[in-house]
Amino acid sequence: MTARIGIIMGSDSDLPIMQEAAKILDQFEVSYELSIVSAHRTPEKMYDYATSARKRGIQVIIAGAGGAAHLPGMVAAMTELPVIGVPVQSKTMSGIDSLYSIVQMPPGVPVATVAINGARNAGILAAQIIGASDTKVADTVAAFKQSMKTEVLAKAEKVEDIGYVAYVAGMK
Amino acid sequence: MTARIGIIMGSDSDLPIMQEAAKILDQFEVSYELSIVSAHRTPEKMYDYATSARKRGIQVIIAGAGGAAHLPGMVAAMTELPVIGVPVQSKTMSGIDSLYSIVQMPPGVPVATVAINGARNAGILAAQIIGASDTKVADTVAAFKQSMKTEVLAKAEKVEDIGYVAYVAGMK
Amino acid sequence: MTARIGIIMGSDSDLPIMQEAAKILDQFEVSYELSIVSAHRTPEKMYDYATSARKRGIQVIIAGAGGAAHLPGMVAAMTELPVIGVPVQSKTMSGIDSLYSIVQMPPGVPVATVAINGARNAGILAAQIIGASDTKVADTVAAFKQSMKTEVLAKAEKVEDIGYVAYVAGMK
Amino acid sequence: MTARIGIIMGSDSDLPIMQEAAKILDQFEVSYELSIVSAHRTPEKMYDYATSARKRGIQVIIAGAGGAAHLPGMVAAMTELPVIGVPVQSKTMSGIDSLYSIVQMPPGVPVATVAINGARNAGILAAQIIGASDTKVADTVAAFKQSMKTEVLAKAEKVEDIGYVAYVAGMK
Amino acid sequence: MTARIGIIMGSDSDLPIMQEAAKILDQFEVSYELSIVSAHRTPEKMYDYATSARKRGIQVIIAGAGGAAHLPGMVAAMTELPVIGVPVQSKTMSGIDSLYSIVQMPPGVPVATVAINGARNAGILAAQIIGASDTKVADTVAAFKQSMKTEVLAKAEKVEDIGYVAYVAGMK
Amino acid sequence: MTARIGIIMGSDSDLPIMQEAAKILDQFEVSYELSIVSAHRTPEKMYDYATSARKRGIQVIIAGAGGAAHLPGMVAAMTELPVIGVPVQSKTMSGIDSLYSIVQMPPGVPVATVAINGARNAGILAAQIIGASDTKVADTVAAFKQSMKTEVLAKAEKVEDIGYVAYVAGMK
Amino acid sequence: MTARIGIIMGSDSDLPIMQEAAKILDQFEVSYELSIVSAHRTPEKMYDYATSARKRGIQVIIAGAGGAAHLPGMVAAMTELPVIGVPVQSKTMSGIDSLYSIVQMPPGVPVATVAINGARNAGILAAQIIGASDTKVADTVAAFKQSMKTEVLAKAEKVEDIGYVAYVAGMK
Amino acid sequence: MTARIGIIMGSDSDLPIMQEAAKILDQFEVSYELSIVSAHRTPEKMYDYATSARKRGIQVIIAGAGGAAHLPGMVAAMTELPVIGVPVQSKTMSGIDSLYSIVQMPPGVPVATVAINGARNAGILAAQIIGASDTKVADTVAAFKQSMKTEVLAKAEKVEDIGYVAYVAGMK
Repeated sequence: MTARIGIIMGSDSDLPIMQEAAKILDQFEVSYELSIVSAHRTPEKMYDYATSARKRGIQVIIAGAGGAAHLPGMVAAMTELPVIGVPVQSKTMSGIDSLYSIVQMPPGVPVATVAINGARNAGILAAQIIGASDTKVADTVAAFKQSMKTEVLAKAEKVEDIGYVAYVAGMK
Repeated sequence: MTARIGIIMGSDSDLPIMQEAAKILDQFEVSYELSIVSAHRTPEKMYDYATSARKRGIQVIIAGAGGAAHLPGMVAAMTELPVIGVPVQSKTMSGIDSLYSIVQMPPGVPVATVAINGARNAGILAAQIIGASDTKVADTVAAFKQSMKTEVLAKAEKVEDIGYVAYVAGMK
Repeated sequence: MTARIGIIMGSDSDLPIMQEAAKILDQFEVSYELSIVSAHRTPEKMYDYATSARKRGIQVIIAGAGGAAHLPGMVAAMTELPVIGVPVQSKTMSGIDSLYSIVQMPPGVPVATVAINGARNAGILAAQIIGASDTKVADTVAAFKQSMKTEVLAKAEKVEDIGYVAYVAGMK
Repeated sequence: MTARIGIIMGSDSDLPIMQEAAKILDQFEVSYELSIVSAHRTPEKMYDYATSARKRGIQVIIAGAGGAAHLPGMVAAMTELPVIGVPVQSKTMSGIDSLYSIVQMPPGVPVATVAINGARNAGILAAQIIGASDTKVADTVAAFKQSMKTEVLAKAEKVEDIGYVAYVAGMK
Repeated sequence: MTARIGIIMGSDSDLPIMQEAAKILDQFEVSYELSIVSAHRTPEKMYDYATSARKRGIQVIIAGAGGAAHLPGMVAAMTELPVIGVPVQSKTMSGIDSLYSIVQMPPGVPVATVAINGARNAGILAAQIIGASDTKVADTVAAFKQSMKTEVLAKAEKVEDIGYVAYVAGMK
Repeated sequence: MTARIGIIMGSDSDLPIMQEAAKILDQFEVSYELSIVSAHRTPEKMYDYATSARKRGIQVIIAGAGGAAHLPGMVAAMTELPVIGVPVQSKTMSGIDSLYSIVQMPPGVPVATVAINGARNAGILAAQIIGASDTKVADTVAAFKQSMKTEVLAKAEKVEDIGYVAYVAGMK
Repeated sequence: MTARIGIIMGSDSDLPIMQEAAKILDQFEVSYELSIVSAHRTPEKMYDYATSARKRGIQVIIAGAGGAAHLPGMVAAMTELPVIGVPVQSKTMSGIDSLYSIVQMPPGVPVATVAINGARNAGILAAQIIGASDTKVADTVAAFKQSMKTEVLAKAEKVEDIGYVAYVAGMK
Repeated sequence: MTARIGIIMGSDSDLPIMQEAAKILDQFEVSYELSIVSAHRTPEKMYDYATSARKRGIQVIIAGAGGAAHLPGMVAAMTELPVIGVPVQSKTMSGIDSLYSIVQMPPGVPVATVAINGARNAGILAAQIIGASDTKVADTVAAFKQSMKTEVLAKAEKVEDIGYVAYVAGMK
């Protein structure tokens, strides 16, 4: 099956965070490909990846990076596909540098930015974008939202039932 | 023509910024509707708007708000459509509060956040999302990117030609 | 006994922090109810909770949330009761995002914001609000403040007495 | 009529901001008194004000200050009444210093903090606190919220009607 | 011996940091007293402390506090003695809140602020202030500065001598 | 008369701010000298200034600088006199850079930091330091504090008297 | 004369700032070329520029950009020449976003970052880099530093001479 | 062999970070010297170091420091050599203070600033500066960049080959 979503990241050290995007897409049964593409160390690969993505059938790109995080914005510069940026938490600035480097794009070249370390949400957003014209995927997202609601309501019922002391004791 | 994109904002004071999203969609010939929906002052209207949007044919929602900007995230909570958030620059915190309130969404409910005051980019991103499955819109975005490139190259040629002193003099 | 104070939070992961509000109200013998209400995952429950609270006899609502923390502000949007917001410390931004999302409310819809992770103070503030027209509760708060004073004075006396070296040694 | 709310501020330079609290209370017909009490220049007056307020019939104190804003927290230290803090925007730090100095109170001594320059919201919150046990005031707040809603809905209808271009033109 | 320097802090939890001020004054043989004075929990003791300090022979006050750190500024408000403020690192904001609450004092009431957790430097600064008119203490400070220089020069010589690899290995 | 206080700044562009230190010392009748000493452009002059100050009778140094503000810390490194640092507001970072560069000094070399643009307070603090051992100057400071109190009390009385509407009208 | 330094910027709106780099190089008589190269709008031109620069005789590249400022880092990724980055002040974040996007580069790809809007310093730094192996240019920089010193000393002498009141009066 | 690069730092506690500059220069076979020079504790040594460096054959200086980090800027003030500044991560402010103290230098005295804790990049940048006029060193940097690219491409191939699940499992 051709991949509909491309997940890339600047370094394999981003993989423990970025795999959450893949996991939720596995759960949603939306096809994707995943690789490492560094804006700063493999600029030619980035160029090839970005300029060929639409032709290869990719509909959305998810790009994660940390620090001076240029990958999402540079990929967005070279494709007309929607690009989702995931600011990966950095060691010295808690990801504020990653966030600002990704979200503050100039007029003409948007990046759809999610929360710091928000790879799971990037996967969901990618499915929502696919779902904007694919009813089956939109329904999958709707069902997922319903399941989150059910889960929270069950927890609410439980804490109302047994009280916060027992609930907190049970969390340990 | 049914609107494909819904543009909403928390207050009419956001309109001078948010109109940029409408303007670029006008230019792209992508249909949209535009209104004021306040999370804090018209919560019922927000509920109705968010839960009915997909049924009414909307494919993407653009929501702009400032300060404790809850509109984009709350709308995202109540629809499976992709929601783009525009942090509007606030009076006392330069929009940092708006940005954090919009981008830092919890797992399960992403908002595709653009730059502070980035309404024009929100419009472009909405078109890219439509374009993920609509070749005509994708090609429009591609042509727009090409025109930006041409414009920058012309400016580059000019400054190389006449020198920075004359160029800066001509900017005034 | 009908609850006078409603304590809600966006996720059970907030409970280890938010239980401090319940604990101090237990100590003050002010009645409360506690549950989980997620702005983003159970928006209908939030709507029902906020719009019914006053009728059910609730006088003050305490709402805790982290990240893009919309619960306190959204509840405040839908009730005329005073709402106290507790910014819960987030993983990537130390709660700055939670604080700005809660405190920077627009004109017309205030949230009484306390410190990051300040759930204990939220409980005390709720009691003070009840105490604004309930002498017994106000006197309880006054007695609590007196006991804090006594405790600090005892510690001051001890460190003056035994010196800081012995005091610090005794802290371990 | 005895004042139910005390509005104080650290300097008369805070008055252009802080008067908004008085104005909304005038509109709500909730009695208040207003004066200048400086934590740093009139500490004795602050002590007298805080310790006598409850006895004089005050039910809520609103305190505004900027920079190293100690007035709200110090007053809260010396009364069992609920204290609302208004961080006034400072010249060099945009009020971030004021906000942190007011909201980050230690356990035991809460200050109900509103947005930077949020004096109007402080007045509304004070009314809500009074309203927690005074049905008439609570109903006034409810009516005020309703009027805000009506106003936003009218603006929404107008922009939907005449379009954003005409609406923005009409704003100038 | 009458104490020349008063060291106070808002809570005994500040003592592990604040004891560094006492230690360096012990080393400098400058007399001091040390106690706990909470602006928020023992405001009367703070008032008495600040207004009596000069009469009791105190020449400089060192005050440490964290979060909404009001102690240094409030003491400065009630004495003509120089007051040194130590921002103690807070749990949720790394001491930025403490720093802003202490340093951003309004015109007329300065606090001599040192670095976050800079209690040792507060002790040195107090000695320098005494030394401004006491040659013996000034000479002690000068000798201390000389000893720091000697220590750094020895380390520099060592790393130049054995190389950084051996030096780092020896640090473990 | 020999100067007791040295006021220096990194650039003549700091003079409109830094002159406030001189003005209050004029008012207090405490002698001072004032000059421009740039850490980065006249390092030798800075060295000479710092190392000779004590010998020349200077008791306190006030140093103001903006941006990467090294002057206060470098002077403090080369004298045993107390050094007061004034962070001058910078064009691009509102003085946050100046503040951090001045206050975050390493152990052993304190700078007594005042608020951003707090030159007036630097002058008052210098007088307080002189006053720690000079009763006449301490009494001058005490009288100054008293006059501030009187001024605030008069304003308080006026606003209580004529009401806030008339007071604000009179401010224009 | 072949250009030794390449000055590029992301947009002609950066030119009023970036021209300062050219002006100081004109003064130093170090040859340069200047153009507009946008990472996001002309990525192919950026690629060509960066990969050909060394071959064309360029020894240092100065790149200025604002917001999510990717130009300096992307150019640095594609050349072994030293790249100096100038964070241009942005409209909504005062250039903090520009600074973090430029300075926080990952291991392997440094950008020599100067202050926000520090284009003049970028020019001086480029000359210093040339001067590391070109005595004539190093001597020019040394002479320039000497002239700055002379200028500051003259101002210092003047203010010592005529006093701050006359000096400030003369600044207007 | 005469050292071409001088590596200095304010304290031996900076050595575990700063040694990365030495390691990469060892790898590049570019000669260097390394020592400890404290701006605040050994100002005379700093003066001697900075003013003699060029004469001794040093072509680039790398200076690392934390907190109120004055070493890079002060050295830059006293030499015409290019100075690279490394902001070392501080305990209480994550290195934001170090970064601002180093990068925000005034016009005339640039410091080439790298990322917080970016000592390895400082070494690479120093080599690039040498390489601006030394083909052999420039080629070494080019080869290093090529090896980084090869390494990333190998990791990319591996994750594409074995999938992210196996790859992440292998990282542990």
